[in-house]
Amino acid sequence: METPFHTPFSQLGRRVHEPPIGWLMRLALERPELISLAAGFTDYETLPVAEVQELCRAILTDSARARHALQYGTTAGLPELRKLTAERIIQLEKASIPAVHTEEVQIPQLHPEEVIITNGSQQMLYLISEVLCDPGDIVIVEDPTYFVYLGIVQGLGLACRGVPLKSNGMDPAGFDRLCSELERTGQAWRVKLVYLVTYHQNPTGRSTDLETKRYILERLNRLEEYAGHRIYLIEDAAYREMGFSRSGAPSALVFEPYRDRVIYVGTYSKPFATGIRLGFGIVPEPVRSRILYVKNNHDFGSPNFLQYLLAEAIRSGVYEKHLSLIRARYAEKAELMHRSLQRWMPERVRWTKPEGGMYFWLEFPEEIHTGVDSPLFKEALKQGVLYVPGSMCYADDPARPIPDHQIRLSFGNATLQEIERGIERLGLALNRIMTPYAG
Amino acid sequence: METPFHTPFSQLGRRVHEPPIGWLMRLALERPELISLAAGFTDYETLPVAEVQELCRAILTDSARARHALQYGTTAGLPELRKLTAERIIQLEKASIPAVHTEEVQIPQLHPEEVIITNGSQQMLYLISEVLCDPGDIVIVEDPTYFVYLGIVQGLGLACRGVPLKSNGMDPAGFDRLCSELERTGQAWRVKLVYLVTYHQNPTGRSTDLETKRYILERLNRLEEYAGHRIYLIEDAAYREMGFSRSGAPSALVFEPYRDRVIYVGTYSKPFATGIRLGFGIVPEPVRSRILYVKNNHDFGSPNFLQYLLAEAIRSGVYEKHLSLIRARYAEKAELMHRSLQRWMPERVRWTKPEGGMYFWLEFPEEIHTGVDSPLFKEALKQGVLYVPGSMCYADDPARPIPDHQIRLSFGNATLQEIERGIERLGLALNRIMTPYAG
Repeated sequence: METPFHTPFSQLGRRVHEPPIGWLMRLALERPELISLAAGFTDYETLPVAEVQELCRAILTDSARARHALQYGTTAGLPELRKLTAERIIQLEKASIPAVHTEEVQIPQLHPEEVIITNGSQQMLYLISEVLCDPGDIVIVEDPTYFVYLGIVQGLGLACRGVPLKSNGMDPAGFDRLCSELERTGQAWRVKLVYLVTYHQNPTGRSTDLETKRYILERLNRLEEYAGHRIYLIEDAAYREMGFSRSGAPSALVFEPYRDRVIYVGTYSKPFATGIRLGFGIVPEPVRSRILYVKNNHDFGSPNFLQYLLAEAIRSGVYEKHLSLIRARYAEKAELMHRSLQRWMPERVRWTKPEGGMYFWLEFPEEIHTGVDSPLFKEALKQGVLYVPGSMCYADDPARPIPDHQIRLSFGNATLQEIERGIERLGLALNRIMTPYAG
Repeated sequence: METPFHTPFSQLGRRVHEPPIGWLMRLALERPELISLAAGFTDYETLPVAEVQELCRAILTDSARARHALQYGTTAGLPELRKLTAERIIQLEKASIPAVHTEEVQIPQLHPEEVIITNGSQQMLYLISEVLCDPGDIVIVEDPTYFVYLGIVQGLGLACRGVPLKSNGMDPAGFDRLCSELERTGQAWRVKLVYLVTYHQNPTGRSTDLETKRYILERLNRLEEYAGHRIYLIEDAAYREMGFSRSGAPSALVFEPYRDRVIYVGTYSKPFATGIRLGFGIVPEPVRSRILYVKNNHDFGSPNFLQYLLAEAIRSGVYEKHLSLIRARYAEKAELMHRSLQRWMPERVRWTKPEGGMYFWLEFPEEIHTGVDSPLFKEALKQGVLYVPGSMCYADDPARPIPDHQIRLSFGNATLQEIERGIERLGLALNRIMTPYAG
């Protein structure tokens, strides 16, 4: 019955392809002797085993509560978790606002109904993009940006425009230039979203300051005149709670006049346990209702049992306590990676020690290419270390070439010893390809 | 800064709307005095509280295993759970094949790699439809069918054609007529999927026999000649394990020549705990890879912790033992609902006692309308009982009117007392509207 017929994929089905990182992950699995500084997995040792045991006990020994936890919930999420999430964000804003002195910001009034719980922040990013963007619509992203979001964008057939990321966030002048170009060339109507990763960004570790957020919102407001419709800012705050010491800038939610244009996305996965995959969005109407209708079609609600676990973790203080632990742990790892880089990197390699998150962003001299076909990548593999080529973190923006001399290193999952050895191996690889005669 | 601009939803964003059942669910929440025989929630008393406690203990007291469970997994799912799932389906086929005597069926060779674990079977249904269908493409469904799937179809902008569901499954003659019509009118190329709920169907409780599955696969094979592409059969076996006694017919996977056209969808939610929301698909290539790429964009994998729990449940026998318990429980509830219906329903009401699942399908005389604006629905509300109007379970097929004289009753979540009282109330409502003078 083997017929010659092909499978009639949809346009989306034809567009999607294996993510570039997929190949790296398989390589790491197949060759366990490799030290992977590529994957964004979290620290293994500090995973909250005893804590989750205690949370399970708390929920499952109360028989009525246990039964509710094991039953279906609602599409938007567990009311208690939505409430705790709204309160938590308010606390985070309160903690960060004293650091800035301006009258135009204020603690946002957040209502639990504004919160939608999702399967990691990833699902929220997908839902937002799916309800707002048709193929060919434009999303403005940072150069470089979170490459998994680029997968969503590619699958949905969206066009990307990149704006250089500076040490304080997206370059305002670059953003203004892009907006002006889009206005001038009549493309403003295709712009639907601006996507920023604002705290300890993946991949660069950089954070966006409040002034930049304000500037982007104001400039977007002017771009809307040309677009003829609302343009939304996605603030992806995935690493907000993973700052090593200071609380960082407030989110864009503190600009009350723009509240109806800001979609705040957060996660409980990376700060607590990635095996308990929950994220959330704070979404203004009318986007929120539509996202709920689509989520209803996706899965009619994230697993209730996990939501009970997490609500209990937050309510009981276990979550906050665990945060302190992993902040210290990642700070230690970042410090070690920094020192190892100082020791092993040749002179012309540049990086900034991050103040949170899980990543270092290394810039090499432009003639040192880093892609999977480059001599460096191959030599690193030979030495036994994996990194993410920086080019994977750039959108496919025809207006500029994709830089090919950077890499992302993760200290999330590697042990202290692996960090030291991995950087040593990377240093050896670099020295080999930078001094050809040495081979 | 309140501008007059609208939100620029995508085509999908504009199409989606609140599911009809949403209104019913809110009504049930707002008026707790109502007895809801509407929602498809599962039995509250038999939720596996002690069992999940034990599973959590087993996983979390083994520190290495615990850490893996609390870390990210892979997009396709936990290898152990995929293996157990494949083995389980093989067991189910083995248990059902002796019941049929034909040489053309055989125990399928299932490989763990064919299995994808998803957030309930719902996500699998969404992914299949998303990678195969563009707006305007045709999905053939049962009349009536699972209304949540109709939400997916509506959101994706697909067209539906319905074929009457008989006591043994989709009517072969009706299916043949529809195929011939699609061939004759040049629409065969738009057909992408046939969607069947084959065991104790939601909403009718009916099961599809093997002969009907074979006929549909063969007829599809001929339709493919006109379509010029493969056409897939989704076999939604959500209630397969919830038969009260007999094991039922084999699935369409036993027809080896058609294996590359069958996508088998199952769930662990309803048979175990809906709060631990995991489902799965057995998906042939090349569809499987594309689904994985899209799932990678949705959420890059279902929660690992839940997958560890479920794998432990299956491996340890807890799952199977729980199944026996809930089968007996639902059989008891079905028997009680049947007896209550016998007692309270007027003479011209028809139903068949289901042999599994969670639903009764009632057919009234055609002049008794059941929609939310009907006298019956309003009177039932007055008496304090909620049902799902049958019309919600029919696709929007312009080729036939939507029947409006049927209802779905669920005995999943209601207590024994609620079942008795709910049916009594429904009987009172029916008597009132059937004997106008009685009011």
